[in-house]
Amino acid sequence: MSENESNALIVQKFGGTSVGDPNRIKNVANRVKGYHDRGFKVVVVVSAMGKTTDGLIRLAQEVAEEPSKREMDMLLSTGEQVSIALLAMALHSVGVEAVSFTGAQVKILTDGNFSNARISKIDTKVIENSLAKGKVCIVAGFQGVDVDENITTLGRGGSDTSAVALAAALGARECEIYTDVDGVYTTDPNKVPQARLMKKISYDEMLELASLGAGVLHSRSVEFAKKYGVVIHVRSSFHFSEGTLVVPEEQIMEKLLVTGVTLKSDESRISLTDIPDRPGVAAEVFSRLAESGINIDMIVQSTGQNKLNTISFTVLRKDVESSEKSLNTVLKIWGSGSMSVAKDIAIVSAVGVGMKSHGGIAARMFNAFAKEGINIEMIATSEIKISCVIDKEHGQKALQLLHDVFGLEKTAG
Amino acid sequence: MSENESNALIVQKFGGTSVGDPNRIKNVANRVKGYHDRGFKVVVVVSAMGKTTDGLIRLAQEVAEEPSKREMDMLLSTGEQVSIALLAMALHSVGVEAVSFTGAQVKILTDGNFSNARISKIDTKVIENSLAKGKVCIVAGFQGVDVDENITTLGRGGSDTSAVALAAALGARECEIYTDVDGVYTTDPNKVPQARLMKKISYDEMLELASLGAGVLHSRSVEFAKKYGVVIHVRSSFHFSEGTLVVPEEQIMEKLLVTGVTLKSDESRISLTDIPDRPGVAAEVFSRLAESGINIDMIVQSTGQNKLNTISFTVLRKDVESSEKSLNTVLKIWGSGSMSVAKDIAIVSAVGVGMKSHGGIAARMFNAFAKEGINIEMIATSEIKISCVIDKEHGQKALQLLHDVFGLEKTAG
Repeated sequence: MSENESNALIVQKFGGTSVGDPNRIKNVANRVKGYHDRGFKVVVVVSAMGKTTDGLIRLAQEVAEEPSKREMDMLLSTGEQVSIALLAMALHSVGVEAVSFTGAQVKILTDGNFSNARISKIDTKVIENSLAKGKVCIVAGFQGVDVDENITTLGRGGSDTSAVALAAALGARECEIYTDVDGVYTTDPNKVPQARLMKKISYDEMLELASLGAGVLHSRSVEFAKKYGVVIHVRSSFHFSEGTLVVPEEQIMEKLLVTGVTLKSDESRISLTDIPDRPGVAAEVFSRLAESGINIDMIVQSTGQNKLNTISFTVLRKDVESSEKSLNTVLKIWGSGSMSVAKDIAIVSAVGVGMKSHGGIAARMFNAFAKEGINIEMIATSEIKISCVIDKEHGQKALQLLHDVFGLEKTAG
Repeated sequence: MSENESNALIVQKFGGTSVGDPNRIKNVANRVKGYHDRGFKVVVVVSAMGKTTDGLIRLAQEVAEEPSKREMDMLLSTGEQVSIALLAMALHSVGVEAVSFTGAQVKILTDGNFSNARISKIDTKVIENSLAKGKVCIVAGFQGVDVDENITTLGRGGSDTSAVALAAALGARECEIYTDVDGVYTTDPNKVPQARLMKKISYDEMLELASLGAGVLHSRSVEFAKKYGVVIHVRSSFHFSEGTLVVPEEQIMEKLLVTGVTLKSDESRISLTDIPDRPGVAAEVFSRLAESGINIDMIVQSTGQNKLNTISFTVLRKDVESSEKSLNTVLKIWGSGSMSVAKDIAIVSAVGVGMKSHGGIAARMFNAFAKEGINIEMIATSEIKISCVIDKEHGQKALQLLHDVFGLEKTAG
């Protein structure tokens, strides 16, 4: 962002690590001051300091086995309240006028779904009044209030969502999400050294990458940004280099066939074969698993001979035993079908909006694997994603292969 | 309170020590459950857990030298919010329906005097609705909101004031203040073994005793109780014995001449003699001291010969040096007067509403001292109190003497 673009409104979000101790809070204050001094109107959203939330959860567990969700939200929301007050003080110390607000004070209205509430409306009056007086506004992330003024929290990635929602409501020109990585990479740089920082990525690509475990942004905040066209800037809180812009697809001039590739290595595949082919079968399987608190990732179903079905899906490896237990009950009820489990699998995926208009991506992927003797056990696709289940031992190699085949180290973001 | 008095509304306040850790919070929950099960409508006011507030103050000092008062209130109010959430969870665990509220949520309206706000109004609707549903209401002490919805705190003794104010607004029949002592004693039991727990005491007596350092209740909460006729019950959180009722004077049948006696041993006397006798002299002295942050306790002034004045007063011993420094400046400006300091003095006081109608109390006090050869340096009186400044070494003896002379160990409260 250049000097002449000042006077614009910008939302900046700092996570728990960035405000982890008094010194880091002072660093954040200095960064915010930089923008304020250049004329930007700044709204800052902060999370709870470092391990605060964990400490509060422990306290709750000591007084109650199953703490009520309403009271849990009452408890946890104090974490962000501490951060906003301290950041306001730190800003005052460096000569910047600033004022902090809880979610309730800026009327971040949510539904009443405690611990996982959804934002329905934000009344921007209070913030706009303070901005008009030249003040930096600091808003507690992760929290809101329902219509009865109960305090709610937004669940995982909640502060990102708060920031994006505020940016949308205020018509901010950008929502900066400060994090401990430099931005969004073509793949995990720890796994593929040639991984490249992307300058731009579309909401849908970001959503696919987020669901594939590229944990920079939580899906919900990206969905919100997409809905309201908020530009997200994912960048590092450790230096001043630009990171990755998450933007509407139209703003990406050169649509890459493949933008990023990912690898998940902590899953197992479960297949149910020769099961009844009638309505409700899949529902029975997956409701049973949901009841046991098991999350499903990929699902593939195909009809075999004699009207008998096969359903394959992946679960986290840690959930394999409890999944088998639940499914054995189901098979017993049906009186047919058998189960096979591949415990050590990997899921490699390629994501890119260019896939929409170009065929042949899947073929290139499958060919690359075939040449290296990597067997594909399951395939699942979306409009902009192809995922393959392979043996876990080939995961790392497959990821590197895809990064090379699609030329990700060279392409311009 | 007997069984047949149930269905009444009661406010119970638990301080920081009573909710100092998860186990103590569970103890409080059990006590509250006892009242709830007997049919009482219960509103509970809690302070921050143990040393929470100190920890938050330290954090603030690490980010800013002089933290803004608004942000300090934003920060500190989280302490009570943590307590209310945990107590609600603990009550749920023992099968009691309970709901927690911040000061903002129950609309404890205050002025905008951050860190030392005064309550102006409480909207009781939210609490009354929850009570009507059979729920225990847990309200964060020490905090409120101003008309602009900024979070405010009430200053020292704030949670007591919250409790009394809620009792007044809700028309509660009693405000129980749970503490680590058994109630209010005729004098400090650590100093006089014959000290006796008082069953009843009037607001004015309690106010005098509070200002004399009997630190069970903060003056402000007693003033509030007096204004609205709220009966305060000071009692121990460690057992179930009744403590001391603080009530309107009319409710005390047998008005004792002297209810309690106190001793302060940490003060010094400063006298300014031969100072100008003209308007503004006292103002000059005490504004100068106030500017240096020095609190004055007793003040006595008398006019001597030749239109020259004497002012004597007491300050905390730790403030003697800075007081001398300030006063030397004043004397220099006047060009007249001299200062004398008695560093080691004690203040013994007798308090009792009966003094209003009975003379002779002062004489009995002075005679008792004279018999024992205790010299009186200063005397100050109010309608229901007599205080004497004596040499510090006689303090303990004088206290015991007064307790004996006024028969405090025998009298019925």
